[in-house]
Amino acid sequence: MDKINLVEKLGLISEYWHPKIVGEINDSFVKLVKLKGEFIWHSHENEDEMFLVLRGKLRIKLRSGDILLTEGEFFIVPKGVEHMPVADEEVHALLLEPKTTLNTGNVVNENTVEAEWI
Amino acid sequence: MDKINLVEKLGLISEYWHPKIVGEINDSFVKLVKLKGEFIWHSHENEDEMFLVLRGKLRIKLRSGDILLTEGEFFIVPKGVEHMPVADEEVHALLLEPKTTLNTGNVVNENTVEAEWI
Repeated sequence: MDKINLVEKLGLISEYWHPKIVGEINDSFVKLVKLKGEFIWHSHENEDEMFLVLRGKLRIKLRSGDILLTEGEFFIVPKGVEHMPVADEEVHALLLEPKTTLNTGNVVNENTVEAEWI
Repeated sequence: MDKINLVEKLGLISEYWHPKIVGEINDSFVKLVKLKGEFIWHSHENEDEMFLVLRGKLRIKLRSGDILLTEGEFFIVPKGVEHMPVADEEVHALLLEPKTTLNTGNVVNENTVEAEWI
C-alpha cells in the first residue's frame, strides 16, 4: 500500500510495447508503457482499454479514422473496436485495462507479451 | 467515441469535491475533481479507488499514516480502508472507481453528491 510515481516507474522501463503493471484496482490493472513505431491492428473482444498520454504524441488508428493524443489526453478504445497505436517519436502512456487483457488482444503472435509488475 | 483533454475538462469544473465523469471503461468511471480543504473520513466497502494527482499536492490521510501525493503520483485506496483526502491548496485529480462508488462511500450526508458527466 504505497504511492506510485509515474516518472520514476517509467524510468525502469526499457523495452517498447511491453506494458508493465504498476497498480491493481478492482478487476483491472494500471500499466505503464513506452511506445515507439507502429504496433499491430487488434481488438479486445470484451474489454475497453484506456490510453492516457503522459509524454509525446500518440496516434491511435481506427478503421473509422485516427485519434491523435497529446500529453494530458486520453482515449478509451471500446471493446471490439480494431485499433493500431502508432508513435512516430517515443511516447509514454498509462493504460487501464481488465486483468484479462492481452496487449495484442485477439491476435497472438511475436508481439504478445504477458505484463509483469515493476 | 472521442478523446478527452484533461485540462479542458477541468476548466468546466467550478465546485470542489464534486467529481465529474469524463469516461466510461468497463464497469468503472474515469472522473475529474477539484479538491480544496478537508473531506470526511469514509471508506468504500467493496471498491478500490484510484487518485492520480494532476496538479497540486494531495494528502490522503489513512488510519495507518498519511500518503502525500504530488503531480504525477497516484495511490489506490484499497476497498474497506478508511481515508480522508486533504488539500491545503487547490488540487486537480483524476479518479478511477467502479460505477457504483459514492464519493462519500459508507457515509451519506450533505457531502454526498451523485457524479454527472461533463
